[in-house]
Amino acid sequence: MRKVVILTETELRRCVAIDPDAVAVVEAAFHALATKAVAMPPILRLDIPEANGEVDVKTAYIPGVPSFAIKVSPGFFDNPKRGLPSLNGLMMLLSASTGLVEAVLLDNGYLTDIRTAAAGAVAAKHLAPAHVETAGVLGAGAQARLQLAAAHLVRPFARALVWARDAAKAEDCSRDIAAMLEIEARAVADPARLVAESQLVVTATPARRPILGAEWLHPGLHITAIGADSPEKNEIAPAAIARADRFVCDRRSQSSQSGELHHAEKSGLLRDGFAAIELGEVIAGTAPGRTSPEAITICDLTGTGVQDTAIATFALRRAAEHGLGAALAA
Amino acid sequence: MRKVVILTETELRRCVAIDPDAVAVVEAAFHALATKAVAMPPILRLDIPEANGEVDVKTAYIPGVPSFAIKVSPGFFDNPKRGLPSLNGLMMLLSASTGLVEAVLLDNGYLTDIRTAAAGAVAAKHLAPAHVETAGVLGAGAQARLQLAAAHLVRPFARALVWARDAAKAEDCSRDIAAMLEIEARAVADPARLVAESQLVVTATPARRPILGAEWLHPGLHITAIGADSPEKNEIAPAAIARADRFVCDRRSQSSQSGELHHAEKSGLLRDGFAAIELGEVIAGTAPGRTSPEAITICDLTGTGVQDTAIATFALRRAAEHGLGAALAA
Repeated sequence: MRKVVILTETELRRCVAIDPDAVAVVEAAFHALATKAVAMPPILRLDIPEANGEVDVKTAYIPGVPSFAIKVSPGFFDNPKRGLPSLNGLMMLLSASTGLVEAVLLDNGYLTDIRTAAAGAVAAKHLAPAHVETAGVLGAGAQARLQLAAAHLVRPFARALVWARDAAKAEDCSRDIAAMLEIEARAVADPARLVAESQLVVTATPARRPILGAEWLHPGLHITAIGADSPEKNEIAPAAIARADRFVCDRRSQSSQSGELHHAEKSGLLRDGFAAIELGEVIAGTAPGRTSPEAITICDLTGTGVQDTAIATFALRRAAEHGLGAALAA
Repeated sequence: MRKVVILTETELRRCVAIDPDAVAVVEAAFHALATKAVAMPPILRLDIPEANGEVDVKTAYIPGVPSFAIKVSPGFFDNPKRGLPSLNGLMMLLSASTGLVEAVLLDNGYLTDIRTAAAGAVAAKHLAPAHVETAGVLGAGAQARLQLAAAHLVRPFARALVWARDAAKAEDCSRDIAAMLEIEARAVADPARLVAESQLVVTATPARRPILGAEWLHPGLHITAIGADSPEKNEIAPAAIARADRFVCDRRSQSSQSGELHHAEKSGLLRDGFAAIELGEVIAGTAPGRTSPEAITICDLTGTGVQDTAIATFALRRAAEHGLGAALAA
């Protein structure tokens, strides 16, 4: 009899975290995106304005990967008023050869957090300077913490800086990062100074106006922007993207529609011949990444279905190894 | 603590079937589609040609309905060679006020079968002649049986006729219908004769060339076509649609893109001023349905997200009434 495995968030947290294996499966997913006939249809989007809510559904099929994920990501932004998180959702894994449902992962967005942080690590691995002494993060949410934890796997920096609009949250976040990574970490009041002192900067905010200015760029800097996932959002000043030596994104079509590239292209500041490169192309070696220690690189991550397929497949394997999950007769 | 209800196909079959309540919730959904600010985004479609497979994801939000469904429908057409059904899938119910996942319905397509049959009953209720002595079906699959069972709830015909390309399957189907509805039912070799003798005809085939000819139409006939759900499929001759007194569909945009209207519009046979009416408009009384016993009416059903939201909400309520389903800590 066919079985469907059901995994809860608690079970998933027990077996999946930011670690080198999670980073490796997401890296492989980006490689596949650049080299294989990946099928990744446009996102399905449902808006429920009465509830200040929206739902995105993403999917991607990677040839050679035996399953594919479908991810449902609701964002209901009045939830915090009721003591509920804004972001939730679940993933499903289906067989790529029969379409049968193999697993339902009731992760409430946890696996999205992990695959987003893992993508940050992949970007740092391929684009940050070889030696990062100080890493900074703009933003003080769960993803700010996860991004530095993930980046630390590939660039074991000795010092972390945190800036956030809310200074108290930046303090909390820096304390958490210090404890988690067992390094020196502190909150700073001036984001320009954070960027000046860092070789790797991650922006992880829902900003709708740039929070990182072009005049702050310096040789040997890599920036990863992960906040923008809709046309209104914008973390990096268009002039910074115009000035960087290399602009990389996870998916050109998405960055250009709902990421940092969107604003840069609208600004009219991009030079003739400006070309956005995809992260998978850098990994595959078909496009240049960082070409010198002094180069300034920027990577925009909008979030892709291949990451979901990769992390969901990985989570199901890990859960099986740990003997977790209920198998229901399908 | 939050809970997610998981229901299996076996449990869903125990509490949901074609009955007047199922027809009523689908009728209400079509009414809402015509009268409320329903949000029903275009279908997400993923193709996996290597496996002769495809996946559709549909959703719809109906104002006033506290939950909305997301339905995942895979169709993998080499499955029968492996002894597996082609169609499978599941539905999820999410809260329309918080986006939280309320239930996962592992129905393997069962609820789609039910809501499709229920829509056929709604079409017959509003468009078929008041008295139907004989109902015919072209096709001999599961949906052929369900369509006549559903139509019988609203037009208790005394006789059923079945035609299918495979005469043996038509025989089997007619025997099943006779037993199920306790009426006279027989297979016929000539679809033209079936139409001639029927006041209500349902086409339920995957035909890619018309199986119902315009010259077969006669006064007092209603036809419901439910087979076409992609641009290549076509059950009703374009000339028949041109000749009918009224053409109704579930959703104009879908019928025109992937249903019977697609072929009729391409044929160039439609008269100036031809207007497709939506079933919800007929139910709501904002557009005319059948205006005389002699009228010839055709209804094309391509399948809509509001039906999924309606049937999933209904199924969860029924399951609770029957004490079925596992509640997992979310």
